Amino acid sequence: MSMVDVSTKKASARRARAEARLTLSRAAAAAIRKVDLKKGDALAAAQIAGILAAKQTPALIPLTHPLPLSSVDVNFRWDRNVLVVQTDVQTNAATGVEMEALVGAAIAALTIYDMVKSLERGIRIESIRLIEKTGGKSGVWKASR
Amino acid sequence: MSMVDVSTKKASARRARAEARLTLSRAAAAAIRKVDLKKGDALAAAQIAGILAAKQTPALIPLTHPLPLSSVDVNFRWDRNVLVVQTDVQTNAATGVEMEALVGAAIAALTIYDMVKSLERGIRIESIRLIEKTGGKSGVWKASR
Amino acid sequence: MSMVDVSTKKASARRARAEARLTLSRAAAAAIRKVDLKKGDALAAAQIAGILAAKQTPALIPLTHPLPLSSVDVNFRWDRNVLVVQTDVQTNAATGVEMEALVGAAIAALTIYDMVKSLERGIRIESIRLIEKTGGKSGVWKASR
Amino acid sequence: MSMVDVSTKKASARRARAEARLTLSRAAAAAIRKVDLKKGDALAAAQIAGILAAKQTPALIPLTHPLPLSSVDVNFRWDRNVLVVQTDVQTNAATGVEMEALVGAAIAALTIYDMVKSLERGIRIESIRLIEKTGGKSGVWKASR
Amino acid sequence: MSMVDVSTKKASARRARAEARLTLSRAAAAAIRKVDLKKGDALAAAQIAGILAAKQTPALIPLTHPLPLSSVDVNFRWDRNVLVVQTDVQTNAATGVEMEALVGAAIAALTIYDMVKSLERGIRIESIRLIEKTGGKSGVWKASR
Amino acid sequence: MSMVDVSTKKASARRARAEARLTLSRAAAAAIRKVDLKKGDALAAAQIAGILAAKQTPALIPLTHPLPLSSVDVNFRWDRNVLVVQTDVQTNAATGVEMEALVGAAIAALTIYDMVKSLERGIRIESIRLIEKTGGKSGVWKASR
Repeated sequence: MSMVDVSTKKASARRARAEARLTLSRAAAAAIRKVDLKKGDALAAAQIAGILAAKQTPALIPLTHPLPLSSVDVNFRWDRNVLVVQTDVQTNAATGVEMEALVGAAIAALTIYDMVKSLERGIRIESIRLIEKTGGKSGVWKASR
Repeated sequence: MSMVDVSTKKASARRARAEARLTLSRAAAAAIRKVDLKKGDALAAAQIAGILAAKQTPALIPLTHPLPLSSVDVNFRWDRNVLVVQTDVQTNAATGVEMEALVGAAIAALTIYDMVKSLERGIRIESIRLIEKTGGKSGVWKASR
Repeated sequence: MSMVDVSTKKASARRARAEARLTLSRAAAAAIRKVDLKKGDALAAAQIAGILAAKQTPALIPLTHPLPLSSVDVNFRWDRNVLVVQTDVQTNAATGVEMEALVGAAIAALTIYDMVKSLERGIRIESIRLIEKTGGKSGVWKASR
Repeated sequence: MSMVDVSTKKASARRARAEARLTLSRAAAAAIRKVDLKKGDALAAAQIAGILAAKQTPALIPLTHPLPLSSVDVNFRWDRNVLVVQTDVQTNAATGVEMEALVGAAIAALTIYDMVKSLERGIRIESIRLIEKTGGKSGVWKASR
Repeated sequence: MSMVDVSTKKASARRARAEARLTLSRAAAAAIRKVDLKKGDALAAAQIAGILAAKQTPALIPLTHPLPLSSVDVNFRWDRNVLVVQTDVQTNAATGVEMEALVGAAIAALTIYDMVKSLERGIRIESIRLIEKTGGKSGVWKASR
Repeated sequence: MSMVDVSTKKASARRARAEARLTLSRAAAAAIRKVDLKKGDALAAAQIAGILAAKQTPALIPLTHPLPLSSVDVNFRWDRNVLVVQTDVQTNAATGVEMEALVGAAIAALTIYDMVKSLERGIRIESIRLIEKTGGKSGVWKASR
């Protein structure tokens, strides 16, 4: 196994967007929205955990490169009882930030799980996936719906 | 936000099993099975990454407790083109290891993604979820289906 | 230099409380209270950062022992324009958790600084100190006012 | 909450100096100076801990950026029984290194506390603050007094 | 103690190669080669551990700089019963990557030890050393023999 | 690959001693002894780095267990121009601390290398090995000379 050698690639602006979806019971969704959980504000905790985890990507995913991230965003939206975690990561580097966006989304989603699990044990995280990436030789890539 | 206070709970044997599923193209599934990837042996990398990540859970999920894990296992099985990552974690502690099992499964699955992404960008990790937990006051819990 | 050898000490219930104080301008204090900052909710970020940092104490303070923390709490109160960060840490171990409480308070306070620094650069963190510790051979210790 | 997006900012030389002050009893100050402590050389331990912690800033302070630090210095001076920890950090990056300097100063000061606490429990860390920063759009900033 | 200030040095392409050698019993060497160990595939585990550790160098070796590594390789070859771990690290930076190559080699070798120790406790890691470095003011350096 | 399951093993007192040897030029050895190095006190830096690294063992060596270490010592002695790093680690746990002692010795030795490398590039770390372990089912084990 070996890291892809990027020593001859030029740094350029790159972005990636990833998303994780959690299907929640109506009760759990309401508790998160009203910040009515024993453990506190699930979305705030997940946002911070997702941002910190994105920065830890090179320590978690073996063949990733340490990159100078210029921004990491973790946001949430509701699709009925489905909570959608969306992460956006940017860098100016010789390789992309897909893994940073995906790690941020996964850890943010698992933090939600941890905050809500006393209410509902069987939460399922569905569909962690890359939504879009731009920059680099391959240009723009978008998930087909 | 605050960690659940477990100072008055007794240590007892606890186990958790979690699972992550990745749907792959036939080509990507074949490349993983034959260890025919530019980056190397995806399953070996994912196994190590998942074990190491499970041990980093208290640094990743804000309100989790540092626990003396007595074992962490990461295994794989194929369900046609679906790769199922299964993690099993054990401890003897005052609180459970669900989050350790889930973090291990998520990071192992994302490592697979990273190893294969040059072949197939649109891989989706589906259904990261707890399968079973035993021990503690709540006894045995199993995912429905 | 060497860690204190605690191999012959018995585990017992131990607690520590620490505190950090930040003196803020009226404008900065108001912005924190109303969550009216470009970077977002300073107290939520500081709470999470303080809890995570307390768990990282053995990686930060060279001669501390890795301990099974049973709880970490980070709370805030206002004393006019002074923001008081208070941390409470518990363990059942052979040595105390003063350093965990102090590290949590320091990193929570610095996170506040980071969230507010675009508004007011000259914030001073004052008086990071241990407030109280209980448990172990030395019993209860309280800071003299 | 979100990291400030620095993707359109140019890298430039930036420096920051921070300081932490510890008020010690005469006995504790003497023990540090003479390296007459059970745990060993407090200043050497604090220097190393401060340098390592400054490099860990992106893992500790949620909204900070990972930066290619070009130097980190931790130094000490005595002002009677007050020990002054001074940190100097440099980078060539799109954002400043104030948080790195402050984290280094705080962890160095807490390491001193840990080395001396068996002699004097009630040590207070006072006045962790930024002293000076240079570089970037805002140019030179100096603490008043 | 202080990090070397590299703020006035220009970034340039730099490489380092290091090596660690383990002398094994014939039985242990055979078990590694045939992947016939209770703990699993020693070389795969060591490769991943070495790559991850090289990236952690700034957190492990106090006065090293955080660097944007462009590749890390860990490879193995057999010299009879001696297993040679060879690491190759590249960067484009103001300072070299010798320590990254050495840390990668050391942790990979210790991982082998850990995988095999139930078979043979007395394994000795011999001769962790720099083999070659290129780039920077000092140009090419090669180990004598 | 999988961690050895220690869930049915009883905790007991365990110790391990490891050692690393560095052969230095006379000039380098003298510079270390007189603390006459540009980077500062090599032995103090190595001691702190070794202690911190021993505590990071579960994050570095994939199949090791997180353990409540009760002490970590890093000491030095001179055998002419050979610097011997000796580490002693203790725990009360279900598994041993050999890897912690070995990781501490390796990182302490590499820190020495880093502090001296501007004086002498070709330093070789020789003979990282376990010297002795006690406790657990296998009792006392000593390296044959």
